[in-house]
Amino acid sequence: MKTSIKLPEETSWIIEESFFNPEWLGKYESIMCLGNGYMGQRATTEEQYLNEVRDTFVAGTFNKFDAKEVTELPNLPDLVQMKIKVNQESLDLTQGVISDYSRQLNLKTGELSRSFNWQTPGGADLSFHFSRFVSMDQLHVMGQKVTVKSLSGKIDVEIVSGIDGQQTNSGSQHFSEGEKHLFESRFMQMTSQTTQSAIDVVQTTVHQFSIPVERIKSRIEMRRRQIYTNYWLTLDEGEELRIEKLSTIHTSRDLEHEGRALKVIEATALSELKGAEKKGFDQLLRASAAAWERKVWRIAPIIITSSNPQDQVALNFAKYHLHVMTPAHDNRMNIGAKGLSGEGYKGHTFWDTEIFMLPYFTYTHPEIARGLLEFRYHGLHGAHRKAEGNGYEGAQFPWESAWIEDGETTPVWGAADIVTGKATKIWSGFIEQHITSDVAYGVNQYVEAVGDQHFLETKGYEIILDTAKFWASRLEWDDETQKYHINEVIGPDEYKEHVDNNAFTNYTAKWNIQKAIGIYEELEVSQPALLAQLSQKLDLERVYPEWLDKVAKLFIPQPNQELVIPQDDTYLSKKIIPLTSYKQDEQVGTLFHDYNLEQVNNMQITKQADVLLLIYLFENLFSEEVKRANWQYYEPKTMHDSSLSLSTHSALAADLGEIELSYDLFKEATNIDMGPSMTSSDEGIHAASLGGIWLMTVFGFGGVRALDGQLRINPHLPKAWQELRYSIFWHQNELEMLVTADQLIVTNKNQVSPVTFTSRGMEYTVVDSVTVSLN
Amino acid sequence: MKTSIKLPEETSWIIEESFFNPEWLGKYESIMCLGNGYMGQRATTEEQYLNEVRDTFVAGTFNKFDAKEVTELPNLPDLVQMKIKVNQESLDLTQGVISDYSRQLNLKTGELSRSFNWQTPGGADLSFHFSRFVSMDQLHVMGQKVTVKSLSGKIDVEIVSGIDGQQTNSGSQHFSEGEKHLFESRFMQMTSQTTQSAIDVVQTTVHQFSIPVERIKSRIEMRRRQIYTNYWLTLDEGEELRIEKLSTIHTSRDLEHEGRALKVIEATALSELKGAEKKGFDQLLRASAAAWERKVWRIAPIIITSSNPQDQVALNFAKYHLHVMTPAHDNRMNIGAKGLSGEGYKGHTFWDTEIFMLPYFTYTHPEIARGLLEFRYHGLHGAHRKAEGNGYEGAQFPWESAWIEDGETTPVWGAADIVTGKATKIWSGFIEQHITSDVAYGVNQYVEAVGDQHFLETKGYEIILDTAKFWASRLEWDDETQKYHINEVIGPDEYKEHVDNNAFTNYTAKWNIQKAIGIYEELEVSQPALLAQLSQKLDLERVYPEWLDKVAKLFIPQPNQELVIPQDDTYLSKKIIPLTSYKQDEQVGTLFHDYNLEQVNNMQITKQADVLLLIYLFENLFSEEVKRANWQYYEPKTMHDSSLSLSTHSALAADLGEIELSYDLFKEATNIDMGPSMTSSDEGIHAASLGGIWLMTVFGFGGVRALDGQLRINPHLPKAWQELRYSIFWHQNELEMLVTADQLIVTNKNQVSPVTFTSRGMEYTVVDSVTVSLN
Repeated sequence: MKTSIKLPEETSWIIEESFFNPEWLGKYESIMCLGNGYMGQRATTEEQYLNEVRDTFVAGTFNKFDAKEVTELPNLPDLVQMKIKVNQESLDLTQGVISDYSRQLNLKTGELSRSFNWQTPGGADLSFHFSRFVSMDQLHVMGQKVTVKSLSGKIDVEIVSGIDGQQTNSGSQHFSEGEKHLFESRFMQMTSQTTQSAIDVVQTTVHQFSIPVERIKSRIEMRRRQIYTNYWLTLDEGEELRIEKLSTIHTSRDLEHEGRALKVIEATALSELKGAEKKGFDQLLRASAAAWERKVWRIAPIIITSSNPQDQVALNFAKYHLHVMTPAHDNRMNIGAKGLSGEGYKGHTFWDTEIFMLPYFTYTHPEIARGLLEFRYHGLHGAHRKAEGNGYEGAQFPWESAWIEDGETTPVWGAADIVTGKATKIWSGFIEQHITSDVAYGVNQYVEAVGDQHFLETKGYEIILDTAKFWASRLEWDDETQKYHINEVIGPDEYKEHVDNNAFTNYTAKWNIQKAIGIYEELEVSQPALLAQLSQKLDLERVYPEWLDKVAKLFIPQPNQELVIPQDDTYLSKKIIPLTSYKQDEQVGTLFHDYNLEQVNNMQITKQADVLLLIYLFENLFSEEVKRANWQYYEPKTMHDSSLSLSTHSALAADLGEIELSYDLFKEATNIDMGPSMTSSDEGIHAASLGGIWLMTVFGFGGVRALDGQLRINPHLPKAWQELRYSIFWHQNELEMLVTADQLIVTNKNQVSPVTFTSRGMEYTVVDSVTVSLN
Repeated sequence: MKTSIKLPEETSWIIEESFFNPEWLGKYESIMCLGNGYMGQRATTEEQYLNEVRDTFVAGTFNKFDAKEVTELPNLPDLVQMKIKVNQESLDLTQGVISDYSRQLNLKTGELSRSFNWQTPGGADLSFHFSRFVSMDQLHVMGQKVTVKSLSGKIDVEIVSGIDGQQTNSGSQHFSEGEKHLFESRFMQMTSQTTQSAIDVVQTTVHQFSIPVERIKSRIEMRRRQIYTNYWLTLDEGEELRIEKLSTIHTSRDLEHEGRALKVIEATALSELKGAEKKGFDQLLRASAAAWERKVWRIAPIIITSSNPQDQVALNFAKYHLHVMTPAHDNRMNIGAKGLSGEGYKGHTFWDTEIFMLPYFTYTHPEIARGLLEFRYHGLHGAHRKAEGNGYEGAQFPWESAWIEDGETTPVWGAADIVTGKATKIWSGFIEQHITSDVAYGVNQYVEAVGDQHFLETKGYEIILDTAKFWASRLEWDDETQKYHINEVIGPDEYKEHVDNNAFTNYTAKWNIQKAIGIYEELEVSQPALLAQLSQKLDLERVYPEWLDKVAKLFIPQPNQELVIPQDDTYLSKKIIPLTSYKQDEQVGTLFHDYNLEQVNNMQITKQADVLLLIYLFENLFSEEVKRANWQYYEPKTMHDSSLSLSTHSALAADLGEIELSYDLFKEATNIDMGPSMTSSDEGIHAASLGGIWLMTVFGFGGVRALDGQLRINPHLPKAWQELRYSIFWHQNELEMLVTADQLIVTNKNQVSPVTFTSRGMEYTVVDSVTVSLN
């Protein structure tokens, strides 16, 4: 496959674009995106190209374009762009001669850099170096540095740079034209307001030049939605020009600005930028890199000794993006399915968070995990509205969430149906209901691993009880079977719409109600006052007896004679077609070039792990034989047309001891964004897939799982890996695992308490260190 | 000056781009724009380029983005774009090798064509030919034809084409995402609604291929705000592929669709497109060219025999654009200052219409002129609102007009002040008041030339009386001079804000009131019933005596000792600075790179003809000496920083007998759009300048003027012109003038009535033909 992606062997921290291809802009914009959880920015270049998607997002600033659209994360006015002309020729990598080209993202420092020599069509020779960061140290700050050097004679340089508010989300404009200000003849500021949610966004920018100001002619220009300064200067042969552009973004949605007058926010923004300018680009970048080290890399590091050094890059890449995308600073926000790296999925939060990204934070950054779950707690109001609107009780979590007040935000219409030519209705917002038990699962996993009693008592219990209440009200009595059914749903496999008794949905609903029953019964004994309080709020005395009755009569799809658990009531009776060609297709979703969704609905084709995901999440519910039978049945029918799928299969394969198969799937899964498919990340990185890279490593090869509150560590390394070193937090203990082919050494690095775990069926307690033989 | 513009000598109908330069896109998008008064379309190419402005407008479909913006003509979803890939390489004229390039606008047929050979970077050789028109025959129809031929071996061709609703007006999105439909697997339709004015826009498109459908693989795609079909096919060496893309635009604002259900409009749109498809591109283009001939070229043709053949091109160019920009089909609409060719001035109508474009229509297409004036009649309601809002009576016309109900639509904030860095307040909407007498002037000129008694009685009288009523209420009594003043205005010279007694304003206000007095007194005698009716509506019995008093006491700036009429009370006392360098500057407005408006306000610098415009419009008010003295005083101080200025100076110079100077100014004025300045038309063509080309020819060199209802024809040709042949309509008589250096032959071609005119002070009456000696 043709690609310009290079993952240098000598370091595990660099993603490199080795040559420029204007058809692949989206790939690098996404995988090299910068951010700090507060803001995210696609890696568009300073100069513009056709088909670029120049997105900057600030987490939580949702806005709705009009009544027909759902709310989305708006694309902010752009700060990155700098038009550069040399002897009146615009910098453009498709023109003239480019040599020594390299664009690199340094995952460790968060620095995006680019360098090349350019011979202009007119014959001037120059070298360029660009550097950029979004500060992990000061969340509102970003910096750019451009170095231009003339390699041949005197050149005239023109630079136009400022703030460009003509950006849209694929045509939808979310901002009123901003107020533009110039302060002290240098600081440009633009304040834009979102059209519906009335969030003020204050962007401020300033330029510094390495040559004396007397040699620069400049002029301010304000055009529609734009404020620019034009700079003109002349460089001598061999002379180097450095331009630093420092910018800040502040919004009225920021927690620290709540209730503040806009003037105060604007003044704060200007003052923070002045402070940043005093430090200068280099110092700011060093401080940001230090923050990356402090907040990310030093914590629960993973070191893979592999004959494929790119495995380590993949882990670093995943962790980098997990921190770029996650609004760790504000529990009113959550992670978008594309992080802050693209317009795909509109910045909305899905079950991806709980099932695919949350485990990383739960086990390595529990305070961030708590914030993500507090978001769900804030979202209970919207979940009540949704349940009530559908005639149910309790908390029915929205399939897609945006701002905490928004409730359900799933759009109703999607891509064209190739048969009818009409837009396809998106049913997930209506009937993809397992999200509710997924949230409860995420709460439970967090509490089991972290032991955060305070969260449990103030929020966790309530989420699990309230979601159980939804499920109980959701069940439908079936006279014929004398069972409760869950009809008319979509399971994780979205290629099966309007199915009855989706196994994943029924099993996890049952688990959710059972968990609530357990909590009720436990609190009755241990914390009656808390129970009384919860009971009053949630009417538990009425619903608890119903739970007992309903959970006993809930229909749970059982393995058939071939031990296969039916994905739903009709799946196993549907037509089977050969899928190999589609599965081998580089591009996802090509099945729909030949069939429409209705046709696929009637075939045994699974978009993504469904029954197998259930088995992976609840491994102690199923026997080894059932696991294997289902693996063999469903794996060939699974298209992996969702980025949530491969990592599940990889981890499950590892659980089943199919280590080399697991490793093959690991390689495939790590390639979803980092690999050579040059267009599949155009709409943004695949957040769940990046969470999945950590899951495959720590849960899959590392063998970590919490089973009914019990830590299990069953590692098994693929042949390519000589050693795996990773850490997790378990009830505040920092456990470091060193895994080789022969043994597992578990070290409790901070020794908060003795930790008991099982491995290969044996129980161990680690105070300082324990060695488990794996032979 | 570097340019790619070519005006071939052998024909006066072709504007050619002789080589492609991506920095000059805007120039050709504007000057080669297509349209028919219903819709206008910038000449963007099928393939996209950075910095293109892909505008399509439908006259009258105004929408307001939000409360902070003024209403504007929204940029419609784009129909023109076609992505073309050859062996996976995107067609891009900045890549590979281009030869035999030519893009031509045929002014006579309205066909825009483009041809070139392209060697792709990958080495494939192809020839391309593009042709396009917006039908002058069927206002809703446009057509495109693309011909691709492989000159070297087999090639794979991919075409993506449809409707793209991601367009904005420089970032402001005026449409909700459109509903997308595919009919009969071929007809794509998108229905978008403006966000505030709720106008439905229905766009429908279909493709036809010259090769059998079995050889084409296709697939529909609907993305956000986009509907496309993807086509894939393979061409053999030497094989030619023709693609016809035919499209229609209909809107709920169309007169014929008023009150209709959207479904009916959508069905009409589809049916019109099906009818068009039956005819095919070639027949549709022929019908459109025939309509151009019938509606435009055959009517009042102008033939210049000049040693500069480009003079004839300029006339054809001007007439072409005057008909492209003018909504002749609907009197609820008027002409925008940039026609339908760009976002500049937001599609708004200014005094440009009455003073610069209307005369062409009045003298050659009186039915179109009437429609333009009926627009003002429809606008009386808004003019009343504006007067009332300012504490005045009568009709104060908005400085900028959009939809007939809108009233004043001038934006309040403009470009940045280079001294303070703040946006400049635009005062025109508040105090540039001469628009009101300009409208009355236009009505009077139309009535004098056309003799349209019906219009006069139903609308014309009322406009003149109602505007006079405004002026009378607007006058301010000055105790000191015991005169009425008009203080705090902007005259035509917008570089002088907040001045008192601007000569142009005071003179024309006086004329307006006098005209109303005359009407009142005439109707008293001739049509008392009509007067009674008007009197009741306008309270004339009360205001008529006031008019008599006020007009007598209105201060009218008189020539000083040097015979110079003061432009306003303070102009002549202001500082004089040397202007030569700015006047020679290719770019307009460079003065503001050194001074801000406040500074310019305090210098004797005139943006555009002001006193001289007054003299040109009311030549019989001033003696020859006064005219010359003012010419000599004001010409050097006039920056011509408005496209309304040069043509006035040229015509006035001709009046003054300065024929070669007039011709120099004519050449300069015709270059405003058609000339080699490659960026000044970026925001659209200069409508008033194009009207001015006709004015300079017919009023200037042709010497035509109506003075107090009397036709005067005083021609004088520049040396370069051997002969000038032109026609005008005068009270339904089609008069053809043949002018040489020696004589003027006036022929009454349809002889509706004998026509009396003066020439060189002598009176003539033409029944069939009269020859006037010019020696």
